[in-house]
Amino acid sequence: MEKDFGGFKGVLIIGMGLIGGSIALSLKREGYTGKIYGFDLSEERIKKAVELGAVDRGFTKLEDVPWDEIDLVIIATPVKTFESVAQGIKPFLKEGTVITDVGSVKGELVKKLEEILLPHRFIGAHPIAGTEKEGVENAVIGLFKGKKLILTVDKEDEETRKLEKFWTDLGSKVEVMDPYTHDFVFASVSHLPHAVAFALVDALIELSDETGIDLFLYPGAGFKDFTRIAASSPVVWKDIFIENKESVLHTIDSFIKSVEKLKEYIQKEDEDRLVELLSEIRQKRLSLEEG
Amino acid sequence: MEKDFGGFKGVLIIGMGLIGGSIALSLKREGYTGKIYGFDLSEERIKKAVELGAVDRGFTKLEDVPWDEIDLVIIATPVKTFESVAQGIKPFLKEGTVITDVGSVKGELVKKLEEILLPHRFIGAHPIAGTEKEGVENAVIGLFKGKKLILTVDKEDEETRKLEKFWTDLGSKVEVMDPYTHDFVFASVSHLPHAVAFALVDALIELSDETGIDLFLYPGAGFKDFTRIAASSPVVWKDIFIENKESVLHTIDSFIKSVEKLKEYIQKEDEDRLVELLSEIRQKRLSLEEG
Repeated sequence: MEKDFGGFKGVLIIGMGLIGGSIALSLKREGYTGKIYGFDLSEERIKKAVELGAVDRGFTKLEDVPWDEIDLVIIATPVKTFESVAQGIKPFLKEGTVITDVGSVKGELVKKLEEILLPHRFIGAHPIAGTEKEGVENAVIGLFKGKKLILTVDKEDEETRKLEKFWTDLGSKVEVMDPYTHDFVFASVSHLPHAVAFALVDALIELSDETGIDLFLYPGAGFKDFTRIAASSPVVWKDIFIENKESVLHTIDSFIKSVEKLKEYIQKEDEDRLVELLSEIRQKRLSLEEG
Repeated sequence: MEKDFGGFKGVLIIGMGLIGGSIALSLKREGYTGKIYGFDLSEERIKKAVELGAVDRGFTKLEDVPWDEIDLVIIATPVKTFESVAQGIKPFLKEGTVITDVGSVKGELVKKLEEILLPHRFIGAHPIAGTEKEGVENAVIGLFKGKKLILTVDKEDEETRKLEKFWTDLGSKVEVMDPYTHDFVFASVSHLPHAVAFALVDALIELSDETGIDLFLYPGAGFKDFTRIAASSPVVWKDIFIENKESVLHTIDSFIKSVEKLKEYIQKEDEDRLVELLSEIRQKRLSLEEG
């Protein structure tokens, strides 16, 4: 099928961070011929986005945006700001403009945004892609290529299909999921691993303090890979943990149980159960490589 | 200084696994001109080691080894077998032969091996290098290049300096540490991260079972890196956890405290303390990149 990016002729990306910038740069690279506009409260970020050639024009005031040219708005600011962004843009939107986001948390938030933005259509989206870096200056062309993108919709309609085409043309593999299932799944596979990486580095800080040995002088094999995500943005992750609190706490409790189980087997020197447990885990982890 | 690998003329590597194989192949590549012999109970592994050109000759019976040619023995079997290996080889050793190992656990074990092998000199060594793979067929030339190697010695003497030269000529950066400090340090930076990775995958298995959603279909950004070490050998890690039980349990307890702290801040939605904690962690993790 021809690349038409869902037929959207003008895209406004709100938030010129790593994801917003990567969408803009990837659109250009993939041959998108419509307008790409960027909005950010920071003059500096907008300036960078324009300099990098990510956007055709950049704005720091909503009233300056040529709203009659915009038929797709992508909210790419921190999750916490979504409601106020939606309130802020609503008066400006022309009829038929579709609004979407790239946030890691859906659930109630999607329901709220759907309501706020009525009669416009809001469609929650979550690209499963990113790096631990921040800012438009670290934007990556092709960041979404071959990566999953979750659309959290209840019903598939014309707008949904257009947005699906938009992301497919950017190279994403689109899946549809209800917003609550989404939050549980990503609490498990993304938010929990981040919490664990943060806690691991914190434990090493505490153990270094306790013993006077700077443990960070001895990063063993795998340790750097393992804790790379602990360098992720504190503000972004504070927001995600709190916005998805219920699911995150549920998965942390499950994880603590797993640590306690392992601890118990080690304490008891229960070799058989240890090998059995570690073998099952190894099998499961190896099965991922095939994907 | 000229490369003389500490002046050792004949090396016997006991255990033709990933590490043993990588030592043998790396010795050849780095221009070692002495004999490299391999020993393993498994005919198959010895056959592979000979086929790969890792060793000059391979043996499966201790009495077949030309012991009068051996002045360095490297024990590269699982940690758990070290005592019986030491007992087994002791009657064969010629005067002046130095024995060393490549195990991840030192402490009491080193003390025991030093005693068993008297009047021969045992020097504990731990190369901080490896992969999650196993077996001589996955051996890596240059595995130790630029990597730290810890010698756990109380006093530096001629034998220690020879072994230090051996590893330096293989490209390692040698550090000296007492065996108990070693165990605490590597419990923290290696054994704890492995325990955490195992527990994380286990938690996802449990959460998948609980909800009927196969969470492994959604490996998010960083998840594969993060849990790669969960595919490490179950038997090797069962041994390490049990051999280094005291330090491992100590670091697991510290880690659980860090998880509980993070959980508390999320539960209370304490944004300030969350950002402060995550920022401190991020700073510490970023400081590693410079190393």
